[in-house]
Amino acid sequence: MNDMSRLAAPSAAFLDGLRELLGPKGAQDPEPEDPRLSEPRDRWRGSAAMIVRPASTEETAEVVRRCAEAGVAITPYSGGTGLVGGQLRPETPGGAPGLLLSTDRMNRVRLSAPEDDAVVVEAGVTLSGAQEAAEKAGRLFPLSIASEGTARIGGVLSTNAGGLAVLRYGMARDLVLGVEAVLPDGSIHHGLKLLRKNNTGYDLRHLLIGAEGTLGVITAAALRLYPRPAEWATAFCAVPSPDAALELLHLVRERMGETVSAFELIHKTGIDFLAEHVPDARHPLDPVPEWSVLTEAASGAGSEMQARLEAALEAGFEAGLIEDAAVAQSEAQRAAFWQVRESIPEANRKVGAVSNHDVSAPMSKVADFIRAAGPAIEAAAPGTRINCFGHLGDGNLHYNVYPAPGRPKEDYDNLRPEIKRIVHDLIDAHGGSFSAEHGIGRLKVGELARYGDPAKLAAMRAIKAALDPRGIMNPGALFG
Amino acid sequence: MNDMSRLAAPSAAFLDGLRELLGPKGAQDPEPEDPRLSEPRDRWRGSAAMIVRPASTEETAEVVRRCAEAGVAITPYSGGTGLVGGQLRPETPGGAPGLLLSTDRMNRVRLSAPEDDAVVVEAGVTLSGAQEAAEKAGRLFPLSIASEGTARIGGVLSTNAGGLAVLRYGMARDLVLGVEAVLPDGSIHHGLKLLRKNNTGYDLRHLLIGAEGTLGVITAAALRLYPRPAEWATAFCAVPSPDAALELLHLVRERMGETVSAFELIHKTGIDFLAEHVPDARHPLDPVPEWSVLTEAASGAGSEMQARLEAALEAGFEAGLIEDAAVAQSEAQRAAFWQVRESIPEANRKVGAVSNHDVSAPMSKVADFIRAAGPAIEAAAPGTRINCFGHLGDGNLHYNVYPAPGRPKEDYDNLRPEIKRIVHDLIDAHGGSFSAEHGIGRLKVGELARYGDPAKLAAMRAIKAALDPRGIMNPGALFG
Repeated sequence: MNDMSRLAAPSAAFLDGLRELLGPKGAQDPEPEDPRLSEPRDRWRGSAAMIVRPASTEETAEVVRRCAEAGVAITPYSGGTGLVGGQLRPETPGGAPGLLLSTDRMNRVRLSAPEDDAVVVEAGVTLSGAQEAAEKAGRLFPLSIASEGTARIGGVLSTNAGGLAVLRYGMARDLVLGVEAVLPDGSIHHGLKLLRKNNTGYDLRHLLIGAEGTLGVITAAALRLYPRPAEWATAFCAVPSPDAALELLHLVRERMGETVSAFELIHKTGIDFLAEHVPDARHPLDPVPEWSVLTEAASGAGSEMQARLEAALEAGFEAGLIEDAAVAQSEAQRAAFWQVRESIPEANRKVGAVSNHDVSAPMSKVADFIRAAGPAIEAAAPGTRINCFGHLGDGNLHYNVYPAPGRPKEDYDNLRPEIKRIVHDLIDAHGGSFSAEHGIGRLKVGELARYGDPAKLAAMRAIKAALDPRGIMNPGALFG
Repeated sequence: MNDMSRLAAPSAAFLDGLRELLGPKGAQDPEPEDPRLSEPRDRWRGSAAMIVRPASTEETAEVVRRCAEAGVAITPYSGGTGLVGGQLRPETPGGAPGLLLSTDRMNRVRLSAPEDDAVVVEAGVTLSGAQEAAEKAGRLFPLSIASEGTARIGGVLSTNAGGLAVLRYGMARDLVLGVEAVLPDGSIHHGLKLLRKNNTGYDLRHLLIGAEGTLGVITAAALRLYPRPAEWATAFCAVPSPDAALELLHLVRERMGETVSAFELIHKTGIDFLAEHVPDARHPLDPVPEWSVLTEAASGAGSEMQARLEAALEAGFEAGLIEDAAVAQSEAQRAAFWQVRESIPEANRKVGAVSNHDVSAPMSKVADFIRAAGPAIEAAAPGTRINCFGHLGDGNLHYNVYPAPGRPKEDYDNLRPEIKRIVHDLIDAHGGSFSAEHGIGRLKVGELARYGDPAKLAAMRAIKAALDPRGIMNPGALFG
C-alpha cells in the first residue's frame, strides 16, 4: 500500500477554509523553529502545511471530515513527549504535506463525579491536570509517568502509557471507562459513559487506546478513579539477584495483596550515573548494592502498611531474599527514595546512551534475559556499560547501553543497529516485547513488521483500511 | 447487507471432507434433541448441518479456512450457558445451514506459570477448571459467575463475562494477558504472551474479547492470576435506601481500598422469593430489611480484615448508613451469607419472570433509576413485583419484573415489550446500558441498533466486513 497516492496536499482554498472555521487561534502557520514540530530525542523534524488547534470536538470533527473528503493527512499532536516519533510527520520527497492537529485548546475538565469514581476530561488536559482533578474530587487517578506535567490525556491514551503503578492499577487503557473520539470519516463516537459494565458490541475504546492516532482523534475520556490511600510504606532493599527480587515480589504480594503499588528493580550502574550527574539523589543503602528493589505499598487509614511491609521484609531477610533494607520513616524519606528512582532517566540523558530499549518479558524470564543479554552485548561492543532498571512487577525493563567510560557515544554509531538487534532478538526469544510502554510511532515500524504476529498485522491493516480508507490519520505511524 | 446472499450451504463433499479431517469424534451429525442446539431459556432452537469439535487450534484453523473459502457459516459453541442466544443459529427460511463449532475438545491447561501470575488454558476449559488450575498454582483466578461449572473460557471471554468480583478485579477482559484465536480467514493469531506491558499496535485481544464469536474463534487464553487471599470478612447490612448503600460503599472503600471485592445490593422481594422457593437460604437479619447489602473484603495474612470491616461498618452505623448488620463469624456463616445471594436466581426462575433486565448505570444514578422505574412499571403493569438486585459497586442491576401474586406470567405476554421499553428507555436516560454483562447475542440486536452510538455501530460494521467479508462468523449475532 502506498498512502502517498491517496493523500493530497491541501489547496490554498482548503487552508483558507480552515482559517475561517477555526479563527487565528485555531489555524496557525508553523514557525520555522516551532517546537510542535520537534520531538524529545531530535531524531526527526516534523513538517506541516498548517497547525490546527480545534477548540471543541465539533470543530475537530469538521476538520477531520474535510480532510477525509480531500485526502489531506492529519498528524494528531498531544503533549509532544512521545519517544518514538508518533507525534510528527517529516517531510518526504514527493509526499503530500498535511496538518498537525493539536488538542491543546480542548483542555476542560468536563465532569467531576466522585460518587461514580470518575472524571471526564478533554484530550488537551495534562496528565497532572487529570491527577489534580481527581484529587479535588477526593480520589486518586493513579497513572504516573515522568512527563506527566507535559503529556496530555489524548496522547497518554493514544499511546497507552504505563509508568510506575501498573502493577496495581494497570496501564492507561485499564483506567478508562469510555472515550469520545472523532473517527477518520469525521463522525463523532460518543462513548463517554461512566459504566463499569457495558457489553454492547466491539470495544471501540480499547481499539482507539494504543492506536497512536491512526484510527481517529480521542477528544475526551472518562477516567476511572480510585480511593486515595491514607498510609504508605516505602522501602529500598538490597537483593542478591534479579531472581531473588522476583521471589521477594511474590512474597510481598502474598502478604500484602494489591496494596503493593510499586516494585522497581534498579541496577547499580544507574546509581553510579546518579552519583556523577545528579548527586542530590542519594541511594539510602551503604554500600550501594549491585541490585536494589524500591517497593511501596499503600492503603486506607488503619491498614498498618508500615508494620505489614516491615514484617514482609523480615520474612524476606529470613528467606535470604534481602541483604539489607531501609524503610522510609517519614514523608521526606519517602520522597528521597523516589527521587533516586525518578532521577535515573535524567542522569541517563546526561551520560548519553548508545542505545535505549523499552522491553518487557514474562516476570519469570526477566533474570534469564538479563543473564543472556549482558555477555552478548559485551561481545558485540566491548566495554560498554548497561543500565538496567524498570518495573519488575510488570516484567518491564528499561535496558540501556552506554559507552565505555571516557568514550563518546558517537564511537558506537555503527554498532547501534547490532546492539538493538541483539536485545530485541533476545527479548523475543524470551517471550517478550520490543516495546513495553513507548509504542511504535515511526521508530519501531520495522521492529513491528519483524517481530509482530503476522495474523495480527494483517488484521491491523484490514481494520486501518476499513476505518480510514484514504489513510489520512497519522500516516507513517505504526504501519510506515 | 444481506449475509444470506454471501453464505452457502455446505455441500455433501464439503461435509465428507470435514469428517475425514476431524474423525468421528470431531464431526458429528446433530441429534434431533441435541442439547447443543438449545439455550437455557428455550427461546430459540438452533440448527446445524454438522457439529464439529476440532481437537486443536490447527484443526480449528483448517475448518475455518475451508468455511471461509466455501462461504459456510460457523456458530462457535462454548459452554452453552449464554442468556442472549449468541450460541446458536436458528433455521431461517431460505437461509444456508452452517456448522456449529464446539471447542469442548480443546480442554487442556497448557501452562501453569505461578511466577508469572498466569495460566494458559484452552478455550474448552470450564471456568471452574480455570479457577482450579489457578488454585493448583497457588494463585487466584477471580472471575466468578453462577454458571462457572459449565461455562467455558472461550465463551466466557467472547461474551466478556462479569460476575461477583468485578468491583475489585474487573470484567473477563481485564483478566486476560493474551489470546490465541483463529480469525475468519483461518489464520491463527498467536497472542499468548505473558506480558503486562506490550504496546505493539492495535489491541486485537480486546477486540476479540466481547465480540461474541463474530470476529473469530478464541482457542486459548493466558489468564492473569492474583494472590490468594488468606483472610476474609463478610457482612450483611440493612441499609435505609440505595442512596445510603452507595455512600456506604464509598465509606468502606475509603477505609479498605481495593480489598473490597463484593458489594451486592439486594431488595426484599428477592428474599421473599427465597423464603417461598429456596427456604434453606435464610437472610441473617430479622426482620428482613427492604434493602440489604452483602459486602466482602479479603487480603493476605495479618491484614485484619474482620476488625477493619467491623470498624468501617461501625462508622457506617454512626453516619446513619446502616440500620442493622451481621458479620460472618465463621467460614460456615460466610457460606450461608453467600448462599442467600447466589440462590436468588434459582428462586427467580421458580417464580417465573415477566421480563428480565441486565442493566447498568453510573453508580450515582442507580438510586434515581430505581425510583423512576418502579412507578413507571406499576402504571404499565399494575400489581407486578420487581426483584432488583445486583452489583452496586459496578452499577449493575438485575432488574426483573414478576407477575402479581397468584397470576401466571403468560397473562403479561402482551405487556412484555412495553415493560422492556420502559426499563431500557429509563436506563438509557440515566446514562446507562441495556446490556451490562450478558451481551447482545440474538436477543438484543434490536436494542443495540436502537440505543447504540451510531458512529460506533458504523465502525463495528466496517471492522466486521474487513475481517470477515463473507460474514461466516456467527451470522445473526450482534448485527442481526
